[in-house]
Amino acid sequence: MLNIAIIGGSGYTGGELLRLLVNHPEVRINLVTSVQSAGRPVHEVFPGLKGHIDKIFEPFVPDEAAKKADIFFLALPAGGSAGPVSRLISMGKRVIDLGPDFRLRRSEAYKTWYKFEHPNPSLLSGAVYGLPEIYRMEIKPARLIANPGCYPTSIILGLAPLIKSGALIEDQIIIDSKSGVSGVGRSPSLPYHFPEVNEGIEAYKLGNHRHIPEIEQELSLLGEKRVTVSFTPHLVPMSRGILSTIYVKQKSAMETDGLRGIYSDFYRDEPFVRIMEGEALPNPRSLRGANFCDIGVYHDKRTGWTTILSAIDNLGKGASGQAIQNMNIMMGFEESMGLNIPGLFP
Amino acid sequence: MLNIAIIGGSGYTGGELLRLLVNHPEVRINLVTSVQSAGRPVHEVFPGLKGHIDKIFEPFVPDEAAKKADIFFLALPAGGSAGPVSRLISMGKRVIDLGPDFRLRRSEAYKTWYKFEHPNPSLLSGAVYGLPEIYRMEIKPARLIANPGCYPTSIILGLAPLIKSGALIEDQIIIDSKSGVSGVGRSPSLPYHFPEVNEGIEAYKLGNHRHIPEIEQELSLLGEKRVTVSFTPHLVPMSRGILSTIYVKQKSAMETDGLRGIYSDFYRDEPFVRIMEGEALPNPRSLRGANFCDIGVYHDKRTGWTTILSAIDNLGKGASGQAIQNMNIMMGFEESMGLNIPGLFP
Amino acid sequence: MLNIAIIGGSGYTGGELLRLLVNHPEVRINLVTSVQSAGRPVHEVFPGLKGHIDKIFEPFVPDEAAKKADIFFLALPAGGSAGPVSRLISMGKRVIDLGPDFRLRRSEAYKTWYKFEHPNPSLLSGAVYGLPEIYRMEIKPARLIANPGCYPTSIILGLAPLIKSGALIEDQIIIDSKSGVSGVGRSPSLPYHFPEVNEGIEAYKLGNHRHIPEIEQELSLLGEKRVTVSFTPHLVPMSRGILSTIYVKQKSAMETDGLRGIYSDFYRDEPFVRIMEGEALPNPRSLRGANFCDIGVYHDKRTGWTTILSAIDNLGKGASGQAIQNMNIMMGFEESMGLNIPGLFP
Amino acid sequence: MLNIAIIGGSGYTGGELLRLLVNHPEVRINLVTSVQSAGRPVHEVFPGLKGHIDKIFEPFVPDEAAKKADIFFLALPAGGSAGPVSRLISMGKRVIDLGPDFRLRRSEAYKTWYKFEHPNPSLLSGAVYGLPEIYRMEIKPARLIANPGCYPTSIILGLAPLIKSGALIEDQIIIDSKSGVSGVGRSPSLPYHFPEVNEGIEAYKLGNHRHIPEIEQELSLLGEKRVTVSFTPHLVPMSRGILSTIYVKQKSAMETDGLRGIYSDFYRDEPFVRIMEGEALPNPRSLRGANFCDIGVYHDKRTGWTTILSAIDNLGKGASGQAIQNMNIMMGFEESMGLNIPGLFP
Repeated sequence: MLNIAIIGGSGYTGGELLRLLVNHPEVRINLVTSVQSAGRPVHEVFPGLKGHIDKIFEPFVPDEAAKKADIFFLALPAGGSAGPVSRLISMGKRVIDLGPDFRLRRSEAYKTWYKFEHPNPSLLSGAVYGLPEIYRMEIKPARLIANPGCYPTSIILGLAPLIKSGALIEDQIIIDSKSGVSGVGRSPSLPYHFPEVNEGIEAYKLGNHRHIPEIEQELSLLGEKRVTVSFTPHLVPMSRGILSTIYVKQKSAMETDGLRGIYSDFYRDEPFVRIMEGEALPNPRSLRGANFCDIGVYHDKRTGWTTILSAIDNLGKGASGQAIQNMNIMMGFEESMGLNIPGLFP
Repeated sequence: MLNIAIIGGSGYTGGELLRLLVNHPEVRINLVTSVQSAGRPVHEVFPGLKGHIDKIFEPFVPDEAAKKADIFFLALPAGGSAGPVSRLISMGKRVIDLGPDFRLRRSEAYKTWYKFEHPNPSLLSGAVYGLPEIYRMEIKPARLIANPGCYPTSIILGLAPLIKSGALIEDQIIIDSKSGVSGVGRSPSLPYHFPEVNEGIEAYKLGNHRHIPEIEQELSLLGEKRVTVSFTPHLVPMSRGILSTIYVKQKSAMETDGLRGIYSDFYRDEPFVRIMEGEALPNPRSLRGANFCDIGVYHDKRTGWTTILSAIDNLGKGASGQAIQNMNIMMGFEESMGLNIPGLFP
Repeated sequence: MLNIAIIGGSGYTGGELLRLLVNHPEVRINLVTSVQSAGRPVHEVFPGLKGHIDKIFEPFVPDEAAKKADIFFLALPAGGSAGPVSRLISMGKRVIDLGPDFRLRRSEAYKTWYKFEHPNPSLLSGAVYGLPEIYRMEIKPARLIANPGCYPTSIILGLAPLIKSGALIEDQIIIDSKSGVSGVGRSPSLPYHFPEVNEGIEAYKLGNHRHIPEIEQELSLLGEKRVTVSFTPHLVPMSRGILSTIYVKQKSAMETDGLRGIYSDFYRDEPFVRIMEGEALPNPRSLRGANFCDIGVYHDKRTGWTTILSAIDNLGKGASGQAIQNMNIMMGFEESMGLNIPGLFP
Repeated sequence: MLNIAIIGGSGYTGGELLRLLVNHPEVRINLVTSVQSAGRPVHEVFPGLKGHIDKIFEPFVPDEAAKKADIFFLALPAGGSAGPVSRLISMGKRVIDLGPDFRLRRSEAYKTWYKFEHPNPSLLSGAVYGLPEIYRMEIKPARLIANPGCYPTSIILGLAPLIKSGALIEDQIIIDSKSGVSGVGRSPSLPYHFPEVNEGIEAYKLGNHRHIPEIEQELSLLGEKRVTVSFTPHLVPMSRGILSTIYVKQKSAMETDGLRGIYSDFYRDEPFVRIMEGEALPNPRSLRGANFCDIGVYHDKRTGWTTILSAIDNLGKGASGQAIQNMNIMMGFEESMGLNIPGLFP
């Protein structure tokens, strides 16, 4: 059995890691930490886990923690991972960081977009961006995984086949994403107070969402060319789920059927990407609790615009599910172990 | 007192007309018809109206109906208005049609987009598109108002200032709209069954939504040039509200402040269009039951794309509120009479 | 025009007072205060009010405030009204307190249920419980109105006809209430964070909700006999609305039709209480934004239990609507002035 | 591998059976039928199952079906199972009926409550009521399981410890249940159209819900005495979940701690019943997709009433989860096989 630790386990991604890992056949959860909930039983903070795990949230002391696990999942706020990761790695531990601290390759980008000076820029080059569909080979031996952001996961998977083949006009990529509220985390604040979210929909962080540099970095690497995107996130009154609607112009337009062929080929061997057929369109409602990314493509001959729809569960493939997929790859387990779960419906 | 009739009054737009008109100081609701609910008291179908109106839904017999009212609001399914409108007009009545039968100027467009042969193409040229901010002068004397669709209202108001001034590149207009479920009407069917809508979001009618020709017709008239748009509607788990996120490229880029100036000037005297200031962004949650359209603009220097956000209540400014605004203009009442109501919050 | 002030105006009851009063024909809103939002324009905190009011939230300084208005609406947290009310009354102002500080007649009850020592017990006897259907005559000349709690309003109106006539077995009254989330106020905290409320329902404050003494006090006065109730509130994933399901045993059982007769007679002249007929049952969905209380009664011959269903909008008849109704009575305005609005639907 | 068939598999309980059984290690789904969806791939009707099952919905022909499976799950409308069950049993098959046709022991009860003449009254005595916590021994060898209704499951489990010990006054049991919308099934109709359910809560079927005779039958058997209950179901705007709030009077009052002891003892060895501790109260939100029943008890010394709160997922322990638990018992599999899944949160 592999001993794992979850650092920062009382938020939504922590809870989803716990929910999935209690049933993972090769894993023992040996440590769960939380600043706010230290001392409380896990099932008090997550009543649904009662009977599944009897751990207590502990404070996080890196040197102590290192004795208890071989793989560390970090679910900490932006800027919170850089320090502990360095210590854990130096003690020979492998880390899957669900936060943003190691996703960007250029340390200056943290200054520009996250407004902090990265404390460990030297670690950035060694981190592997944990999107298995793109970096599976690099993930296998990695010591430090930067688990992708939720929006970037939906968007990069949605665009990869066309970006990689150079089929798109690079400066005409418009991304309109819609997210459920768990995407903003579990800390209460006025904009996410129930009556403020319910019965409305709104855009936020126009032009300055922190996932922009992550999306552009990965698309540029895939396309081997500087890619700039217009990205606008929206908050939707639902608990989980992301739908990204992506508008692109092809250099030489392929129609819907051809596009589906491209996507099906690109993701042929992927266990967690599904290409929609017939009239069906992706909807995160069918993905709650699952690790899938559902993708639909449509080319509008009349306007010349191509639309890509990409749906995930922000806590599944967009965070904790993907982190476990990464762990499975790193450890040589079957990649879908503990993850082959259909989404809840309804 | 003006006698009015509501034809097809048991759906959501009918209900909203009733809700607003029971308190309109110059109007007497003299007839409310419904095929399905004929014979039932209005307050049985709309319990909230109990004590506000004691009418019974009647069957619609045009010649009888004509005796009871001077202005007719029609809230009938697509294709259902063309016949009765002709009869009512010929009897000297004025009609505000909330359906789509008179919104398109070219009868062939009905064949292409609505899949029916328009039975009264000769009436099309006489109909006035009832968007007061654009056609106020024509609405005043009109005998037949084609009340705009909900999506088109949000979109045309959002684009008018820039389209009219010729500031936009005409083939780079991407519209991503999000609507609450009342927009699909009150007829139950599987996709709108509560558990099928709740906790999800999906695009629908990719490339073939019937509001496309309406949007393009009006934008082309405003821009005096053929305008083509990419329009993708989405269904959001909320009862009311539309948010349209519109992505455009300016020929010569003005920044956010300049754009706000343009919009504020354009809508300076409009009682029902509000331009967002500071950090505020439009959200239909603040518009429920109101006749306002809230518009935000943002220019992203980094990408060169400009984003316009336009929010309405699909049953308010997107249907029944706007219909009453049209009636007020036609009758010479104060334009905001019966409509000067802040949206419900929360 | 009557000058009024709203003290503590940035929460949900404050917002609803503003929403309703901007259109009240006899009122000028002359002062709106808020601790947290002092200095901010009202429309920044309530975007739906943009164009309806151009006030700025001010700090609350009683002596300054007293110069600006004749009637004061107080929407302050428990324990916050007692001080200011005393000062305002002494300056000849009339006060409608939407908080709980003057609802209970016995000062010890504040110690037991609210855990504070009442600072002004001498004012308690002069306060009038502002439920117009029971205390209309006392409200008219009152200087201090204790506006009823939301749950109590639904419950007292639901029980009054049977309690007053002595028809019920006093110790067999079970009240199961369900409330939307705005009932807990606008301060964010974990239990009301969107994903924690959505897709669930739960009971809370079993046996110790602060509305219990208020309910029992008023029912005991009505019944002229000590009445004890079992009251259990539940939180429902909706923004507004209360449904109270009340189970009682009649001493000598009247059947459904007879009961409806009793209720219709009792509330015959009431503008804001409606008794359901036929198969219809009360649902707060039809009451959003309205000042009505809808009541249904049903006697089950098989079990001998009688069920009373009572629905309100917790911010309407359950708070701000009722406060305005009280103001109308106090000032001799028409009682339904500014309140005769059908609920939003859907 | 056990071959199983799902008859009537395109509704919500059918979908949940499929979702759970695709991962059951001992089961092969060999047949899925549907009248409405015959000929369509399962994943078209349940997009979340894409990649998990590649069956096509078939029409149901009992003699053909009998060749394909050994255990039959029937998820048919009331009155639809009686015929097929008889045929399947006669061919030696074992049946788990998720409908109500075999839950009541007295055939006349079907006439009174379901308004149909039971076609196979002779089978009623042989059917076993599939509530494992009460009838585990009888379930093991049973040929025909009447899988309990969703409300009855929550209520009987909530009351069993006190009813069985004779602790309650039998005619003072008040049950106020709240259900998500999936409980009414997947057939669209106006009351369950999204905008009609959203933002409201209502009671329905006062005094005549069909689960009443089922609840009373089982409580009477447990208590060895005629038990009558007042049962009022409510519809809540959420997709899944039931919370039953049950008010009882004890003959000789035990307090909260004593009650918890009784419940913990009664359910000590049960894998799927959890008794709440400390301040925690049951909430179906933590049970979505799970097979648990969470129970809380509280005695109010002040009023003498005892409150029991019982929460389940109506599609889990309230239907499909419980059906699989029954199958596991019948087949001698580990009882929690395929069911040991924590509920989704959030």
